[in-house]
Amino acid sequence: MSITDGFWAPRREIVRTRSIPQQERQLRAKGQQFDALRLQWQPGDEHEPHIFWESDVAKWIEAASYVLAREYDTELDASVDEAIELLAGAQQEDGYLNVYFTVVRPGQRFTDLQDAHELYCAGHLIEAGVAHYDATGKTDLLDIVRKYADLIDREFGPGGVAEGGYDGHQEIELALVKLAKATGDEKYLRLAERLIDNRGAVPHYFDLERDRRGGVEGYWDHVFPDRPSKERWYKEYNQSHLPVREQTEVVGHAVRAMYMYTAMADLALHNGDASLRAACERLWDDLVSTKLYVTGGIGALHSNEGFGPAYFLPDADGYAETCAAIGLVFWAQRMALLTGDAKYVDVLERALYNGALSGASEDGTCYFYGNPLASEGDVTRSEWFGVACCPPNFARLVSSLEHYIYAVDDLGLTVNLYVAGQARFKHAGSTVTLTQSTDYPRGGDIDFTVNVAETTRFELRLRVPEWASNVDLRVNGDVVSAASENGYLLLDRAWSMGDQISLALQMRPVRLWADQRVAAARGRVALQRGPIVHCAEEVDNSAPVRSLAITREAEIRVEYDNATGLDQLVVPGVVETFAGAHLYSSIPPRVRPAEVRTVPYFSWANRGRGTMAVWLRESLAGD
Amino acid sequence: MSITDGFWAPRREIVRTRSIPQQERQLRAKGQQFDALRLQWQPGDEHEPHIFWESDVAKWIEAASYVLAREYDTELDASVDEAIELLAGAQQEDGYLNVYFTVVRPGQRFTDLQDAHELYCAGHLIEAGVAHYDATGKTDLLDIVRKYADLIDREFGPGGVAEGGYDGHQEIELALVKLAKATGDEKYLRLAERLIDNRGAVPHYFDLERDRRGGVEGYWDHVFPDRPSKERWYKEYNQSHLPVREQTEVVGHAVRAMYMYTAMADLALHNGDASLRAACERLWDDLVSTKLYVTGGIGALHSNEGFGPAYFLPDADGYAETCAAIGLVFWAQRMALLTGDAKYVDVLERALYNGALSGASEDGTCYFYGNPLASEGDVTRSEWFGVACCPPNFARLVSSLEHYIYAVDDLGLTVNLYVAGQARFKHAGSTVTLTQSTDYPRGGDIDFTVNVAETTRFELRLRVPEWASNVDLRVNGDVVSAASENGYLLLDRAWSMGDQISLALQMRPVRLWADQRVAAARGRVALQRGPIVHCAEEVDNSAPVRSLAITREAEIRVEYDNATGLDQLVVPGVVETFAGAHLYSSIPPRVRPAEVRTVPYFSWANRGRGTMAVWLRESLAGD
Repeated sequence: MSITDGFWAPRREIVRTRSIPQQERQLRAKGQQFDALRLQWQPGDEHEPHIFWESDVAKWIEAASYVLAREYDTELDASVDEAIELLAGAQQEDGYLNVYFTVVRPGQRFTDLQDAHELYCAGHLIEAGVAHYDATGKTDLLDIVRKYADLIDREFGPGGVAEGGYDGHQEIELALVKLAKATGDEKYLRLAERLIDNRGAVPHYFDLERDRRGGVEGYWDHVFPDRPSKERWYKEYNQSHLPVREQTEVVGHAVRAMYMYTAMADLALHNGDASLRAACERLWDDLVSTKLYVTGGIGALHSNEGFGPAYFLPDADGYAETCAAIGLVFWAQRMALLTGDAKYVDVLERALYNGALSGASEDGTCYFYGNPLASEGDVTRSEWFGVACCPPNFARLVSSLEHYIYAVDDLGLTVNLYVAGQARFKHAGSTVTLTQSTDYPRGGDIDFTVNVAETTRFELRLRVPEWASNVDLRVNGDVVSAASENGYLLLDRAWSMGDQISLALQMRPVRLWADQRVAAARGRVALQRGPIVHCAEEVDNSAPVRSLAITREAEIRVEYDNATGLDQLVVPGVVETFAGAHLYSSIPPRVRPAEVRTVPYFSWANRGRGTMAVWLRESLAGD
Repeated sequence: MSITDGFWAPRREIVRTRSIPQQERQLRAKGQQFDALRLQWQPGDEHEPHIFWESDVAKWIEAASYVLAREYDTELDASVDEAIELLAGAQQEDGYLNVYFTVVRPGQRFTDLQDAHELYCAGHLIEAGVAHYDATGKTDLLDIVRKYADLIDREFGPGGVAEGGYDGHQEIELALVKLAKATGDEKYLRLAERLIDNRGAVPHYFDLERDRRGGVEGYWDHVFPDRPSKERWYKEYNQSHLPVREQTEVVGHAVRAMYMYTAMADLALHNGDASLRAACERLWDDLVSTKLYVTGGIGALHSNEGFGPAYFLPDADGYAETCAAIGLVFWAQRMALLTGDAKYVDVLERALYNGALSGASEDGTCYFYGNPLASEGDVTRSEWFGVACCPPNFARLVSSLEHYIYAVDDLGLTVNLYVAGQARFKHAGSTVTLTQSTDYPRGGDIDFTVNVAETTRFELRLRVPEWASNVDLRVNGDVVSAASENGYLLLDRAWSMGDQISLALQMRPVRLWADQRVAAARGRVALQRGPIVHCAEEVDNSAPVRSLAITREAEIRVEYDNATGLDQLVVPGVVETFAGAHLYSSIPPRVRPAEVRTVPYFSWANRGRGTMAVWLRESLAGD
């Protein structure tokens, strides 16, 4: 599969040439992740290895592997091999692989699952091992993680030191599903099931392990001083407040939630587990009807890096971690696979093009941890973070975009995303190549060319995005009427070499209003065109964006901006200026007409500091 | 002085007949404040006396004393005497009077000034002693607090155990100024000065005392786990980050700030201290131009019960503690005395009639700790609080309203508030009685009658509130032109028995807009009439208030509501209803015309739960 897309290919190239090398430099810095793997740290030394650090290395290897899969690069391959060698060196005889519990707290492995992220790191190592094997065919990392996974399987199985346990930060569950697929060994699927099924069981594992530690609180005790008095809150924080099948509301830390729901959907699909599927569907409904930002961002609350109550979606004060939007992409993809319903891909696309893509700067070297929907001008991206989960997560998502565009099944091919490139798949013994060309998301016209040696019958399912106000579908120039099923247009026919399919999705700029229970959006609208949610930035407007308001009935114009290479939206409105001398005044604000100009949300904060808002006020009477 | 006012007299009667008895019941409950004063608590017993508890008793005595000052009440007098006896019994030989450091942490007095509220409690006891003496002429409590103040004067003076110290919660400073006035002993003024002058000096006293405790953190350590890493924040929290004369921004815990600024203004007035006055004026400007709610509430942030950054004035999520608005009344009064400028009384009146008065329910038995400017329907007043500062603070403010109406000086009389009743003062040997009649704040007409045995020349200064859009002033029926000075109309003439002064303040409902840096007020207006800030409550409207919007140009009607005895404002507007099925929709909201009805903010939440907002959206075009 190849991606030649005008929108994505340059962004993927930036990740390859800028983000991945920059992240590597951070990992290689003195006393940081690579050094830690040498296991030479001793108590009293500076640069105490952090409990997260394997996950940073692993996500970087995973991202690099996706790059290597599409284009061999000697230098990158050598760097990855070096990292794998370090991991091999850090792995213990019995397969255990975690620097922190080897050099900082030896002898305490699997005793602080609630806090210490041990299986979280293991999960990322497993994902890296699978990606590296898929990309290069090399088995060295896969062997390492398999040996570690085998140890985990024993220790979390009957008679193991952590029997009945599971990690406070979900991640390994979805990784084990990948490992099972890569190795064909169902044992890993069973382990993932156990970890999911154990979660939230009573007596509660995190209470049991604390008792076994003699009541000593875990690694995060010092930052969670109120944990003893807020038991429910902290169990919701890591979604262990109830057995997963009894959970009905999306709660707690957003990334943990997404990774868990992803694994639940994976297992529901693999096992045909109806109760797990029902739980996923209930949780999804709760998310999209009460806790999803219009940007596809999720997890509005800073305090838990996660979900607040229903409709709690503040703008400037919202959190919306990059990793959480990425996690939503994962979950949505699995839900689409599980159900065949395009509504999940609508959300996937919303998160991908907006709340996830905003996570990195245009030049691929600076990152947002949180992605608020408004700024008073004090928000900028950072080069790196003490907890550096987002940068490599972004890199691995963008570098693995291939995984999200198509879905193949026995009946044919589903096209979920419109991204120019080529896809090759097997159907009933034939190799089919489908070439997609489009300038999406700038335009909604997508052309497909079928390349198949002999005429082959298969279903082609084309997703009709929720925002498409009109759809025109042609095959070889002729308008065809296709059945619409679960949000897809279904073309079930015999395809021959050179068949042309043309899909035209009408992509008009639209206003979006929110349920009024979303306080930050009251009296406001967001602008969207195609999958791209817009925001106003101060640099494009004649006043701070807090002063802008747009007219409800006015037409929205699309204008290409040469400087950024992006489409802007232009809409008549006003600038309102406070007319008082102090904080309050009975003099009405001064109002002057002004065009309000917006840019794609993902692109904000690339041109210096300034105010920004997604939700724009609606202006008074025909001003 | 008497108050016969139609607005205030019934409210003061409710405080007398409902609030004060209800508070007394709380204080007398088993194991609570009264019991604690018996000093019988022992380690291991339940109901450990709290560090705050003397302050609750003291504020209740103070409020009761104000009531006794205007109307003798055998039962209340006996109750107060009983409380004073308990205090007398709890006082140690050397004058020390604090239950917590007598029975819970004996031997540790004055070692945890940063956290333990010792002088804060002492300050309230002193205020109570002064009020009780003023009201009853009895000296028993005054003697108790004087003896305690003398001990504090020694211990905080040269060679004392707390030399150079001051309390983490300001309060005693303003109390000592009152004690100096009541006793004529300037020593207490000097002590207040020392406490103010020591604050923020380097080396920092709270660091020194912690070092003397062997590095052990103070009483609030367990709720301030991040204190060691946020030194500046915690020094700002109690306004000890800088010497007071170098402070330029209102920061930290709002009540502490108000009590400190009040004492600073007191001392600036008494000592003619220009640098202290300049600091007060700078801090005032910062408050009113960036950190004051339109209700007169202050301290928007929950985390420090105090000030956030400039323009941080969220509505539903704001704090605005009742005690902080009360503290602002104190400070504003002192600033007006210090400067003779009515602008301070404008803010006093705003806080008094809105953000302070909202602190109690109509029936005087339930209280708000925080006074947010909007509610999603989940906010109600409580009967009592674990930290019960607000209820008795409210009671003492309302019961001492006499202190805020007039100011007497050598030149004559200033009328600051329009409250019906009689004032008697001496001027140049004559006794002047001024009778004020008005239905303010319902109307802006105020009539005064002068009662003086012989014709006496004095200045009468009548405040022109900032909201008065037009003013008509007559003496004995004739329009007079009076000089306007610092926000007062100045009548300097010889007054004779029976002279009539009629002041007509035009009291039109107005819209108030806020500086757009106040996010919660963008695209919104508040309604005010006279000193009364309004809010919309769901019970009076045809939809949750989040759906309402009012038309910018439409006239605002005043309508008396029989059920509540309050004026409502009625303004044309619309109800907007979200038209989508889920969280977001491209279908415009449904809009229908509707009258929007508002009530005085102070009266909200007296008729059950429901949504409420002070800041109302402005509606689209002439709907």
